[in-house]
Amino acid sequence: MVEIQPALVPMNRGAGDLEGQLYRGLRSRILGGALAAGARLPSTRQLATSLGLARSTVVSAYERLQAEGYLESSAGRASRVAPIARPAVRGSPARRSIGRSKAVESELLPLTPGVPDLASFPSAVWGRLLAARARRMPAADLGYGAPLGLPGLTEAILAHIAVSRGVVAEPDQLVLFPSTRSAIALLARLALRGQPAGAAQAWVEDPGYTNAQQILREAGATLLPVPVDEAGMDIGKVPHRPPPSLIYVTPSHQYPAGVTMSLARRLQVLEVARQSGALILEDDYDSEFQFDGRPVAALQGIDQAGVVAYIGTLSKVLAPGVRLAYAVLPRSLLPAVQMAVALQGMAVAIHIQAAFLDFLRDGHFRAHIRRMTPLYAARMAAFREAVQSACGPHVRLGPGTGGLQIPIWFEDERIDDRAAALALQQRGYGPQPLSAMHLGAARPGLLCGIAMLQPERAGAAAAAIAAVITGNAS
Amino acid sequence: MVEIQPALVPMNRGAGDLEGQLYRGLRSRILGGALAAGARLPSTRQLATSLGLARSTVVSAYERLQAEGYLESSAGRASRVAPIARPAVRGSPARRSIGRSKAVESELLPLTPGVPDLASFPSAVWGRLLAARARRMPAADLGYGAPLGLPGLTEAILAHIAVSRGVVAEPDQLVLFPSTRSAIALLARLALRGQPAGAAQAWVEDPGYTNAQQILREAGATLLPVPVDEAGMDIGKVPHRPPPSLIYVTPSHQYPAGVTMSLARRLQVLEVARQSGALILEDDYDSEFQFDGRPVAALQGIDQAGVVAYIGTLSKVLAPGVRLAYAVLPRSLLPAVQMAVALQGMAVAIHIQAAFLDFLRDGHFRAHIRRMTPLYAARMAAFREAVQSACGPHVRLGPGTGGLQIPIWFEDERIDDRAAALALQQRGYGPQPLSAMHLGAARPGLLCGIAMLQPERAGAAAAAIAAVITGNAS
Repeated sequence: MVEIQPALVPMNRGAGDLEGQLYRGLRSRILGGALAAGARLPSTRQLATSLGLARSTVVSAYERLQAEGYLESSAGRASRVAPIARPAVRGSPARRSIGRSKAVESELLPLTPGVPDLASFPSAVWGRLLAARARRMPAADLGYGAPLGLPGLTEAILAHIAVSRGVVAEPDQLVLFPSTRSAIALLARLALRGQPAGAAQAWVEDPGYTNAQQILREAGATLLPVPVDEAGMDIGKVPHRPPPSLIYVTPSHQYPAGVTMSLARRLQVLEVARQSGALILEDDYDSEFQFDGRPVAALQGIDQAGVVAYIGTLSKVLAPGVRLAYAVLPRSLLPAVQMAVALQGMAVAIHIQAAFLDFLRDGHFRAHIRRMTPLYAARMAAFREAVQSACGPHVRLGPGTGGLQIPIWFEDERIDDRAAALALQQRGYGPQPLSAMHLGAARPGLLCGIAMLQPERAGAAAAAIAAVITGNAS
Repeated sequence: MVEIQPALVPMNRGAGDLEGQLYRGLRSRILGGALAAGARLPSTRQLATSLGLARSTVVSAYERLQAEGYLESSAGRASRVAPIARPAVRGSPARRSIGRSKAVESELLPLTPGVPDLASFPSAVWGRLLAARARRMPAADLGYGAPLGLPGLTEAILAHIAVSRGVVAEPDQLVLFPSTRSAIALLARLALRGQPAGAAQAWVEDPGYTNAQQILREAGATLLPVPVDEAGMDIGKVPHRPPPSLIYVTPSHQYPAGVTMSLARRLQVLEVARQSGALILEDDYDSEFQFDGRPVAALQGIDQAGVVAYIGTLSKVLAPGVRLAYAVLPRSLLPAVQMAVALQGMAVAIHIQAAFLDFLRDGHFRAHIRRMTPLYAARMAAFREAVQSACGPHVRLGPGTGGLQIPIWFEDERIDDRAAALALQQRGYGPQPLSAMHLGAARPGLLCGIAMLQPERAGAAAAAIAAVITGNAS
């Protein structure tokens, strides 16, 4: 068990109140992995003395960290860093806390959500396209170039998502980013610009994507959690609500519940945004793989008022390491985004842009989706059946009709899903606790990725889950 | 001549006062290229009527745009978009205003500053390394991976800049970015976080890098221009100065004057930062090519107080299209940066990281610098001599002892350097007007890149400059 020396607790630069500084300093170290899961914190008295702070300041900071899930403590015991608490990438497991090489390997654990089958990445084709483009890259394209993307790439991506996702836009509306999260960060910052910190309301799904929520907070928003049911985000459940400046939503495949937003709800959220002048961030992170027919088209495609910014990514359909995402912007936000991108410069290497353009044009992208869909469908089906059979009445499964992950909700809400996730990690599985994805009342369960679970291993995985649930429920 | 319809003038989302909205809307369109150089704006009366604004609001917005160099107007004539006004990349020419394909080609014009000789990019090696790495990339490395960089890459970059630049740091202090500007944007945002907009002072060089200045403004800073002389930024020239939160400086090769900051000034700026708790952003954008001996080491290497964030980039030494830059951070800023990067995810594609690691390890990087240095030295020498010979007493040249560009200051300060730059662009040369890089009193001249100027073309380039100066001065 690691014990933390007070001297190791950093105080952030220029960071306002002391409690906030201490909170952020500790949080950073937990997020960065310097404070690993299970590490014991100094007592509040000890830390207060060594930092020259009032003990109440330290107590407040600890309480805040505990409330947000970074720390765990029980009466009379030292506070410890919570097992899975860092804002990992969507669905990826705790990483730095278990050392780098083990951590990266843990992305390959069966049941890790949010990661595609990395072993199926088309490395040979990708290498060939990168090399071919690099060798014949015109000198003119190696400069600062078009900060909004290689000519032709914008059009090719739009042509793809027009067909697959019903996105309707002109080429100048599409902007490249290295990741969904970097797109959310920039768009939120621009949409909320000029509003005092905390004044702007951002409506978010509950449960939802904690990283996006944290990015919205950092952009200065106050979060308003909106409950999710089987038809998606239900605005009607929040009777007294300040008008939003921003609405973050995952309509195609709600994260983490996996439900698809109904058309009525879609029209409702569009209308709210139209009336309030809010920007809707539609995060379409995992819509390429559908197992029972065509997915509902993107919200962006039915937006008549120009309030939706649509965000897509290659992270789930190809691999996160490619670092290519794109946002389709409403015209109102376009000048500000174009200026920001022109000011900061192109974010994606020209060789990556060029290789992906060829990957799209030459049909490799569609071929990859065609090849992976039945594989993923089989893995999802095998896992669903195995869990139903092994856990029966103890769990309720999410839809699992598409995408790379499925939530398993525990019927017994007293089960500690963080402990369950940790126990499963020790057995070689990488699910994430669903309670960590709630802002309001937390429902326990596990978000399970199926991308790397061979059907023949589904039974063993389900048995491990059943054992952990039973063990915890006893 | 393009005339702008009032209907085309956008009003930004949620953007505060009307004058500010109009200002930003027009600025965005100028920056984005939708309003090209020379485009005529509607009269203030006409625009006020069609937008339903007070005429004084429109007048104020126009005046602000004019003061910042976006618009030009003379008594009794319509306002027009200024010729070279967008925040181009450092040294790169106006781009969108002249259409995309012509624009990209214009980066290849001789005398374009801020761009290396793109035709000398080692495309064959780069393609080979990309392909080799892509083909054998382990599945584990294709995931979300280490958001702070591929293991080994951090160490290899640090080993290089320890020797070449005297940068002293541990591997965990280095973070990758796609570009210098994206690093400046994040670091400034984090360093100024929690301060009300405009409250934080950022000291910047005058003349200086306008894009960096604009990024600092966007991060909420108020700029304090500090004059530059032959020994770099001279803080002593600013007697009444509020303490800085941030100091942006280019000590090795001041942009655009090309001077090297003296040690006395280095120690002075370090001491100011130490006393005020400011962060120094050391932008070491163009220090790899030195024509007369070893460059002065980086400010970072002599920083005892941990106040310097050092930023380096491959844009000048290899090519901007590679999109790889790095920041070496002081420990005080590290947790906040690590958290921000963990939250937004890795910014650089894993294949680019891997190829550059091999490029460094296999000695290609040093070989490229060794190969290019005498080429650039010859181009610089030929250009200096030709300009001295052709323009003689009309100009004063910057040092030109290293780097890819040299300023040519006009002795006759009445010469319009924007017009001169535009005239030279029409003759196939790409220098930039130095007056545009001033915050205070502007001194005219041309910033000229030598990277793409063959020695045998130096005479013709110098003659073209002489002709333009004479024509304008007559």
